[in-house]
Amino acid sequence: MYLQIAGALSEHIRRGAIPAGSQLPGSRQMAESLQLHRKTVLAAYEELLAQGWLETRKSKGTYVSERLPDVLHAPLPLRSGALQPSEEAGYAFEPHPLAQHLPLRSSNALGFNDGFPDVRIAPWDALSRAYRTALRQGFRKNLLFYGDTAGEPALREAMTDYLRESRGLAIQQEQVMITRGTMMGINLAVQTIVRPGDTVVVGELSYQACNLIIRQRGARLQTVPVDDAGLDVEAIEAICRQTPVRMVYVTPHHQHPTTVMMPAERRLKLLQLAKKYRFCILEDDYDFDFHYDSHPILPLASADEGNHVVYVGSLSKVFSPALRVGYVVAPKAVIQSMAALRRIVDRQGDNLLEAAIATMLRDGELQRHLKKAQKVYHRRRDLFCEGLQSALGDLVSFQKPTGGLAVWAKFDPRVPLPALARACKQQGLLLSDGLYYHPTLNATRLGFASVNEAEMQQGLHILKEVAKGLVW
Amino acid sequence: MYLQIAGALSEHIRRGAIPAGSQLPGSRQMAESLQLHRKTVLAAYEELLAQGWLETRKSKGTYVSERLPDVLHAPLPLRSGALQPSEEAGYAFEPHPLAQHLPLRSSNALGFNDGFPDVRIAPWDALSRAYRTALRQGFRKNLLFYGDTAGEPALREAMTDYLRESRGLAIQQEQVMITRGTMMGINLAVQTIVRPGDTVVVGELSYQACNLIIRQRGARLQTVPVDDAGLDVEAIEAICRQTPVRMVYVTPHHQHPTTVMMPAERRLKLLQLAKKYRFCILEDDYDFDFHYDSHPILPLASADEGNHVVYVGSLSKVFSPALRVGYVVAPKAVIQSMAALRRIVDRQGDNLLEAAIATMLRDGELQRHLKKAQKVYHRRRDLFCEGLQSALGDLVSFQKPTGGLAVWAKFDPRVPLPALARACKQQGLLLSDGLYYHPTLNATRLGFASVNEAEMQQGLHILKEVAKGLVW
Repeated sequence: MYLQIAGALSEHIRRGAIPAGSQLPGSRQMAESLQLHRKTVLAAYEELLAQGWLETRKSKGTYVSERLPDVLHAPLPLRSGALQPSEEAGYAFEPHPLAQHLPLRSSNALGFNDGFPDVRIAPWDALSRAYRTALRQGFRKNLLFYGDTAGEPALREAMTDYLRESRGLAIQQEQVMITRGTMMGINLAVQTIVRPGDTVVVGELSYQACNLIIRQRGARLQTVPVDDAGLDVEAIEAICRQTPVRMVYVTPHHQHPTTVMMPAERRLKLLQLAKKYRFCILEDDYDFDFHYDSHPILPLASADEGNHVVYVGSLSKVFSPALRVGYVVAPKAVIQSMAALRRIVDRQGDNLLEAAIATMLRDGELQRHLKKAQKVYHRRRDLFCEGLQSALGDLVSFQKPTGGLAVWAKFDPRVPLPALARACKQQGLLLSDGLYYHPTLNATRLGFASVNEAEMQQGLHILKEVAKGLVW
Repeated sequence: MYLQIAGALSEHIRRGAIPAGSQLPGSRQMAESLQLHRKTVLAAYEELLAQGWLETRKSKGTYVSERLPDVLHAPLPLRSGALQPSEEAGYAFEPHPLAQHLPLRSSNALGFNDGFPDVRIAPWDALSRAYRTALRQGFRKNLLFYGDTAGEPALREAMTDYLRESRGLAIQQEQVMITRGTMMGINLAVQTIVRPGDTVVVGELSYQACNLIIRQRGARLQTVPVDDAGLDVEAIEAICRQTPVRMVYVTPHHQHPTTVMMPAERRLKLLQLAKKYRFCILEDDYDFDFHYDSHPILPLASADEGNHVVYVGSLSKVFSPALRVGYVVAPKAVIQSMAALRRIVDRQGDNLLEAAIATMLRDGELQRHLKKAQKVYHRRRDLFCEGLQSALGDLVSFQKPTGGLAVWAKFDPRVPLPALARACKQQGLLLSDGLYYHPTLNATRLGFASVNEAEMQQGLHILKEVAKGLVW
């Protein structure tokens, strides 16, 4: 209540309704005229004294400060607050169009998505326990303070070991930085390595968010064709011959979005090019953990002898997209530079969460979950590929992916994806209309991992009926 | 084991020790010569087939792929991995000096710090419960998916109400974005509003991390004097008359680092200048919650009628610096732009943590904690100011701060802070040598909030003895 009184009074003063230097009524008189308790008025006066609106003169009462600057005498209506729910800023401001076409949300609704995991099978209980333990030990283990911008040391160490074992990387802890997911890893790497005006090469089909990061940095984006073996490496060399290339962004394990694997000859060739033309390979290994027909292909980073590869990945597909924990592997000097930059981006990661994840890696909880998830998703891939074929027949063409969590499905022109997605949504099934991946290909990613078998059948049924309706 | 074999074989192939097109021994023969189980060799061959190193020819055995590019014939020693723990990147790379002078860590060690809270008194049990509940409801409440880059809706809503009630801001939810702390709020605001080459005004004494963000953006930093009433507003106007000013960064509640409060006349003047010269005021209200001699001064944002103020704050001082939850208040269009940018910075905040904090705000847990902490820190401020005066006498000069968690202490030249800090550290007391705040003032912030009374006495005792030793 007294804050409302104080606010109204300062509003009157600011607008000149009560001029600088004028005396205010005594608190008793003011209280009577406002029908308030005197203590409320006194509190409001004290507030305004502390804020410098009012001043007291010895035993002469309370005055509006003489030192206030000239005030507005505008006959505006009084308001009790200020910021308008307006879209207009009071300064020149150009909203940038960034990210307006990127998908913004995912949810528990039925859908075949970009390739998200089934969050229901993730080891949440183990995480909850590990988080509670981290909280309990927080003070003693220095988890509640300003920490290392490169990540909580326990997680850097555990992640280093995990990446050595699972990915064949011969790395030290100083070469690993913990980030809040792949997005931050790519962003920091681009900010640190690429300068405005530099040339960065990506596939014609590539990860759109990464393209935005590169453009936001003021770099020149050059694209090369993508075929059944991923990026066209000859085309990269052709660009290198013409202009210095700073960085090549690549997803060799499963090309995003088309899911194809880059074979050994292109991998070697790409590494040789990096050496010859001294560019950085930004290797995004977003779903290394899921492979069904063979063991995972070891990343480019495991065969990188010239420190050309910056390797990024995350736990988004292991746990859930909402668990923002990822990593970057790079030479020590690059990691130091990224960690220094991160100091002014978001200061540091979540120490408690990072300590909890470290415990889960040490205990093998994460690895056990991955083995289990691998089996579940393997079966779902097989069921989905069969089901998709039998539901849509020649209206769809796709290659069964050797790994990952999604199928790259090209649709017949008789089934335009925007119409299909719209109609499916009305029936309760979410699909991407594919425009995010490519404007004219009429292709999209259909994620099979986040739905259980009953949901998958239900979704495929909707897809079949809707597609039939569009064609007939 | 089979991965080691596969790695060694691909290493041999890569180096040309086993030429492209050559036939490998059968698995039985290879197993015998390596003294391994045949299954291990078969698994290694399968791995290399999947990776494209090897190819099979019908019933003729296993060959090194013909399609591999020319390989190195260098007589390098074989290695089982690649990335060197080297500091050298295989591409042109200029490490930037950013942040190397910023303080990087805090800990549970005894010290008078920058002004951090006592993390031991924060309501961790309540947070732990709320986090567990969020986890349990995660799927149903869409907390485990890709979410809103402006923050978890429940927290945006709860935070809007909290800021309206506690800060007198007349705002809607669309004007509030949840960030990972003040640092991210400042960074996004600067990236969004300031363009390279723009002029940004800060105090001669100001928040160094913010200065780095402004420089990193490529803006021109102009400083104005700081006196007992904060930023010199006349000096800001003098700059405005000469050059367009895009933004003024200010900490009016307690000037950082000197802790003084900006009085009403300067506040009004600053708002008038913003209107006249159409600049943005970036108001960092880092310790609004702690005030001992009066009610908190309402922020500039509460009196901003022209949408000039971008208001940032965080819960770092409420809970702990490691709990990265903050907020930005700005016009809707600015918030939308910041949220779009955040999409490619770290994708989104921690939905689970944000939902947990929303519950604590709704239940009043956070507000109850603040009331309690306020009392604790009030007493600690009084004890510390008395104790500091009696320990150091005329070797130190300071004003008792009206709020906040630290004293701005200027030391006598006989006690050079670098020497004092070094000697105190040897005795087990951490202090900043003040160079971070100003290179020559021989002044530093002494935080009193994170130590209990016994620790405070112990720290003051060390400070006294060490200072005596330096002077005598």
